Amino acid sequence: MQPNSSHLPKPSLTTFTDLYQLTMAQAYWRSGHTATATFSMTFRGYPKDRGYYVAAGLQDVLTYLEGLQFTQDDIGLLDGLGIFDKAFLRFLSQVRFEGDVRALAEGTICAHDAPVIEVTAPIIQGQFAETYILNQINLQTMLATKAARCVFAARDKYVVDFGARRIHGTDAANKFARVSYIAGFAGTSNVQAGLTYGIPLYGTMAHSFVTSFEQEVDSFRAYAKTFSNGTTLLVDTYSTEQGVRNAIRVGLEMAQRGYTLRAVRLDSGDLLELSRLARRVLDEAGLRTVQVFASGGLDEFSLEGLVSAGAPIDGFGVGTKVGVSADAPWTDCAYKLVEYDSRPVLKLSPGKATLPGPKQVYRRKAEDGMFLGDTITNASSSPAPDARPLLELVMKAGKRLRPDPSLNAVRENCRREFAALPEPHKALRLPTPYPSQISPDLELITEEASAEVRLREGL
Amino acid sequence: MQPNSSHLPKPSLTTFTDLYQLTMAQAYWRSGHTATATFSMTFRGYPKDRGYYVAAGLQDVLTYLEGLQFTQDDIGLLDGLGIFDKAFLRFLSQVRFEGDVRALAEGTICAHDAPVIEVTAPIIQGQFAETYILNQINLQTMLATKAARCVFAARDKYVVDFGARRIHGTDAANKFARVSYIAGFAGTSNVQAGLTYGIPLYGTMAHSFVTSFEQEVDSFRAYAKTFSNGTTLLVDTYSTEQGVRNAIRVGLEMAQRGYTLRAVRLDSGDLLELSRLARRVLDEAGLRTVQVFASGGLDEFSLEGLVSAGAPIDGFGVGTKVGVSADAPWTDCAYKLVEYDSRPVLKLSPGKATLPGPKQVYRRKAEDGMFLGDTITNASSSPAPDARPLLELVMKAGKRLRPDPSLNAVRENCRREFAALPEPHKALRLPTPYPSQISPDLELITEEASAEVRLREGL
Repeated sequence: MQPNSSHLPKPSLTTFTDLYQLTMAQAYWRSGHTATATFSMTFRGYPKDRGYYVAAGLQDVLTYLEGLQFTQDDIGLLDGLGIFDKAFLRFLSQVRFEGDVRALAEGTICAHDAPVIEVTAPIIQGQFAETYILNQINLQTMLATKAARCVFAARDKYVVDFGARRIHGTDAANKFARVSYIAGFAGTSNVQAGLTYGIPLYGTMAHSFVTSFEQEVDSFRAYAKTFSNGTTLLVDTYSTEQGVRNAIRVGLEMAQRGYTLRAVRLDSGDLLELSRLARRVLDEAGLRTVQVFASGGLDEFSLEGLVSAGAPIDGFGVGTKVGVSADAPWTDCAYKLVEYDSRPVLKLSPGKATLPGPKQVYRRKAEDGMFLGDTITNASSSPAPDARPLLELVMKAGKRLRPDPSLNAVRENCRREFAALPEPHKALRLPTPYPSQISPDLELITEEASAEVRLREGL
Repeated sequence: MQPNSSHLPKPSLTTFTDLYQLTMAQAYWRSGHTATATFSMTFRGYPKDRGYYVAAGLQDVLTYLEGLQFTQDDIGLLDGLGIFDKAFLRFLSQVRFEGDVRALAEGTICAHDAPVIEVTAPIIQGQFAETYILNQINLQTMLATKAARCVFAARDKYVVDFGARRIHGTDAANKFARVSYIAGFAGTSNVQAGLTYGIPLYGTMAHSFVTSFEQEVDSFRAYAKTFSNGTTLLVDTYSTEQGVRNAIRVGLEMAQRGYTLRAVRLDSGDLLELSRLARRVLDEAGLRTVQVFASGGLDEFSLEGLVSAGAPIDGFGVGTKVGVSADAPWTDCAYKLVEYDSRPVLKLSPGKATLPGPKQVYRRKAEDGMFLGDTITNASSSPAPDARPLLELVMKAGKRLRPDPSLNAVRENCRREFAALPEPHKALRLPTPYPSQISPDLELITEEASAEVRLREGL
């Protein structure tokens, strides 16, 4: 018999980190190697079929940094590992995040290899934050990008997040609801996310609801009686054709009571054919305003197929394949030290070399405002005196400089950004990569720093 | 300016559900359609390159069910949506989970289409739990299965979870640490998971640690001074060959102080070639006990390649590709109503038809104890009087029947189960699917229930 784990002290979110962040911290601290450092997070290249990123995750990172603090429980648990000095643990219990953060606003288009966030702080603090920053910015950016592709593919149809059940864990499911709304989804089925973020909630019924009644039509009546104008009926439990006819019966009964059936939902089979069938019989019955909603294993590729074929579908529910970014479930992101104690640093590992020094990103635009590409510069130089830097100072000495923008403001930023992104980057298959280039001054700094390292290391 | 979202009431984990669970609940409640129901969760088929599942996630599901309760904040937030009756919300605030749960023990081999968990409860409670049950059992089973493949591929080498930074969100990262340990990993780098579950923690150093010092060898010395026998040095920051030579210098200095360098870590380049190089020069320097540890984009396929080629690598750190199950990031799992008010029910949707009634799973074994396949029966029938059912009653009337087994007991169960699984099911590519079959009595019930539905619906 094992004591129930809920009686044990529960480590805080601050401990969501790799052990090496703490072992390095102890080594830094013991060596007095504690100067200010800058770390830079980038996405190396693009995954297959990705031509841009939509930056997301900053709000959670700032909340994490402001709340960074080991509890007494945490310290006790760490002490129990037997690898840390007592004096170091006392130091650790006092650690807060006191650094600066510059970052792309959420919803902004982000280019490959351009910094999405840079952190300047005493090295122990900046290093320590790596795990959570990578985890959240990677997850939310990857999923916002996937969702933007769906919104693009759906054209004028609406898209709803139905992913809570198969997205990887509760955190990712909630974050997907958030970033898919930023990317232009109409809402989510996820109640926790909807209530947390103020996202419109969507829901219909499950097959279980239908099968629990003696007859399909009884289940439709029971639902319609409860939700009147908010009723969407799931019609594929036994036979979609029959299901639509049962929905029509109930829709006409509702009309007699002065209500309107909102939609029928298709969830299996050939959605193009079935949507045409459903639209035709609904129209024949005079139920022209009843929408056809489709779900079931959809992603941006199937959305594009249905929309191009002119399927009479008004809205889509997407879940699993989109919420796990099934065709590209990871990115090659990295969070690297670029400056320590005013010295630009870099690594030379094959395929993973980094650019030294704090940086800035500037956007090149055509006369009509369309994006041409991003230029990555040394933080202190600018291509033109009035050029607007994309990395904005959002946190100073550990405190947010302003309240977070509302979710709708972030969504609007994303809409504006996406509208200015040329079509070739938006292609679902083999898009033209949205380009970034390194400025001449940064090239020079990189060459110098690289030469200096090679000299010092005798390479 | 927007009020900081942290001042808003925070919805509880109970609200991690799809909106339709609540709209259906209101319709059930309003119609007095509240009899006992049984729901069954299965994995339909196997993803590509999967020949079995390792069941996991039950512990979190039981904790969720025992704690299921809407807070006053939740009810207030739901009321704000304007779609629920006040009387229903009062009812909802009283809802607890009072049902029974039968499930496969964690770590047990699970066959396609065989129930992994069955829930019997008043329909509102059983239906409501769908979203969280699917989310956790799917995630943890999928990741336990992926991890088991790595342990199999690594043979006698040890494997460590390095995935926290790129697994999808904090919940999935912590759960991956847990289930990969169940599947036989040696430990994790994830501090929160290690402290929560009592999993051995592993950590080395980042490239940032190396680059923050003037010279690589200085960084190695600083680390070795702090961690003595616990030191693993990352050698690929500038040049792996040079890095190994610097590690040897520091290893020999440590030896003079009476300490032993534990390992060098390779993180890029051709790991087969570099591991041979590292082993050779370490041996030449007399550092034969210093291990070679490898990481960097590894999965079961690259592990098998390195191990088959005889790479002198002692242990592997795996992260991203394993922790997101990159080659199969989702499964076709479902949680379906199978019985309502003692009436077996099923759906007939093409490709998604279900088997009616509560079920049981029995394992067929060869004389030497090796698994031959699973038989799915009606819950009340058994292939032989002494046959041991795989679905065990673990929760009765909303309460666990016994404390959870320890993580090590679950790991041992997994080890035993995996040892009895024949090799052809373990192949990394195109394995023979571990089979399940439907018993004759269940075939009959399915035919009868299907015929009855067709009759009732006039199909």
